[in-house]
Amino acid sequence: VTENNHNLIVRVVTALILLPLVVWLIWQGGLAFALLISFAAALCAIELNLLPGQAASPSPATEEASHKEHKSLVREEIEELETTSATLTGAAVVSIGAAFALPLLDEIQVSFLSFKLVLAAVVIVALVDALLFETDVARAPTRVGLAVLGAAYPGLLLSALVRIRQLDRGEWWIILTLVVTWWNDTGAYFAGRAFGRKPLYPRISPSKTWEGAVGGALLATVGALLVQRFWLPDLPWWGAVVIGLGASVFGPLGDLSESMLKRAFGVKDSGRLLPGHGGMLDRIDALMFTAPFVLLCARLFAGRG
Amino acid sequence: VTENNHNLIVRVVTALILLPLVVWLIWQGGLAFALLISFAAALCAIELNLLPGQAASPSPATEEASHKEHKSLVREEIEELETTSATLTGAAVVSIGAAFALPLLDEIQVSFLSFKLVLAAVVIVALVDALLFETDVARAPTRVGLAVLGAAYPGLLLSALVRIRQLDRGEWWIILTLVVTWWNDTGAYFAGRAFGRKPLYPRISPSKTWEGAVGGALLATVGALLVQRFWLPDLPWWGAVVIGLGASVFGPLGDLSESMLKRAFGVKDSGRLLPGHGGMLDRIDALMFTAPFVLLCARLFAGRG
Repeated sequence: VTENNHNLIVRVVTALILLPLVVWLIWQGGLAFALLISFAAALCAIELNLLPGQAASPSPATEEASHKEHKSLVREEIEELETTSATLTGAAVVSIGAAFALPLLDEIQVSFLSFKLVLAAVVIVALVDALLFETDVARAPTRVGLAVLGAAYPGLLLSALVRIRQLDRGEWWIILTLVVTWWNDTGAYFAGRAFGRKPLYPRISPSKTWEGAVGGALLATVGALLVQRFWLPDLPWWGAVVIGLGASVFGPLGDLSESMLKRAFGVKDSGRLLPGHGGMLDRIDALMFTAPFVLLCARLFAGRG
Repeated sequence: VTENNHNLIVRVVTALILLPLVVWLIWQGGLAFALLISFAAALCAIELNLLPGQAASPSPATEEASHKEHKSLVREEIEELETTSATLTGAAVVSIGAAFALPLLDEIQVSFLSFKLVLAAVVIVALVDALLFETDVARAPTRVGLAVLGAAYPGLLLSALVRIRQLDRGEWWIILTLVVTWWNDTGAYFAGRAFGRKPLYPRISPSKTWEGAVGGALLATVGALLVQRFWLPDLPWWGAVVIGLGASVFGPLGDLSESMLKRAFGVKDSGRLLPGHGGMLDRIDALMFTAPFVLLCARLFAGRG
């Protein structure tokens, strides 16, 4: 197999292992599903807080790793996490903890803990941590900003998925959210390959085209209408169209926003956790923007069918 | 009058005008008090979001201004705000709006608006704004980070005051919060002048000393015990001691944190809104850390007297 083929195989195998697990957790709902979201948000927060450090050490191991087999890739990722965990600041630790806690707090009540208390603690601890332990004061705002962003960007935005799962027929609302996000991505990829001419936003993402964006919007809308037709009779058909088209705006914006953050720190992949898929943040950047949008639409449109 | 005397007079006059108004609003409570907090938080968010721009233009007007009379100072501040409002980014605008909205949302229910929706909107709008309008991608994380911080730092932390005012005898809980914060500051100033030897944290704040910190802690604890003795019988005396001592840790940490952020951007005063008093952020930096702490203590200790 060539390198590219090998990458594709690794990618497909990883997806084939993870997808059934994710689907099972979606159908379980409740605490199991909230934990899935919490883990994903915490991984995103790790990658986010580590962004400034990565630029300094563009490890040659990254290039090398793609030649090795699956098992060693996972081991390398663990080793990398172990190395970097030594460099995790106090600000990063509360940030990651908050990203883990916030989706859970939408599912279970913990007597004293509230969303506001957690976020206030992140702000105060991050500021004090930067004050006491950041030797270069010019770096302090970034350290504090990324820590608060870890709670408010993956933590808060992904917790919209926990709320969506709590809706009537919540499993199908989750499927709808995933379908509009991923079909938009897929449609954009193939339409871009077939007809792509005019670059959409070359400064951040050279491979996106306007033709791809239109193809993505079409496929996302078709996907939304299919899910609505068969499994979400509560949602009017025009609501599905709004969700499909809206996700085709919010998804790419989420994707580009995350690329912008990486680019600002001179980083290519946010991490290497999922073999062949890059980092967690790279995988679900679009979902972070589409999930709150679908939740808002569900609250506005459901029951008006 | 010498320049120093003049500054002191301006400072005292401003305080004499503002203090009765603030006290009146504290006794009013409800929407009037929440609006006071909202305005203060929004002003802090303005100053916070403008920090990166200020370093570039260390206006000589700042030095000059202290020589002029009150009226022209206010006019200059308005002119400065007008100039800078042209440079306010979309990220800054949602940040300031959120800082204004969050304390209000603790007082009044607005059908659809929730704390989470506001914060999610800030994250998404700030990222998209930086994506579309920030020409230098390396500055994007700071722009986004400060916008989210504007909502989560002044917005969220100051809204603790609205919650404190809603407690039984809330006006006295507010007085307690202000007394421990300001008496700590005052005690530290005079004890520092009288006995100050060992610098506390010279890297950020050269004038703070350990002797001052002890004096501040003593005065704050005395203040807390006085307010408790006469007006908060619901609070046990040891609760007042905890609040006094705790505020003497959180207050200076809040003060130093804000100084750190200014120093990171090479800024001396966060703004010039209050004649003779510097910016709003400079005035209430300690309060942003003590208010959530007092709220937590009130929930833990009240009724155990």
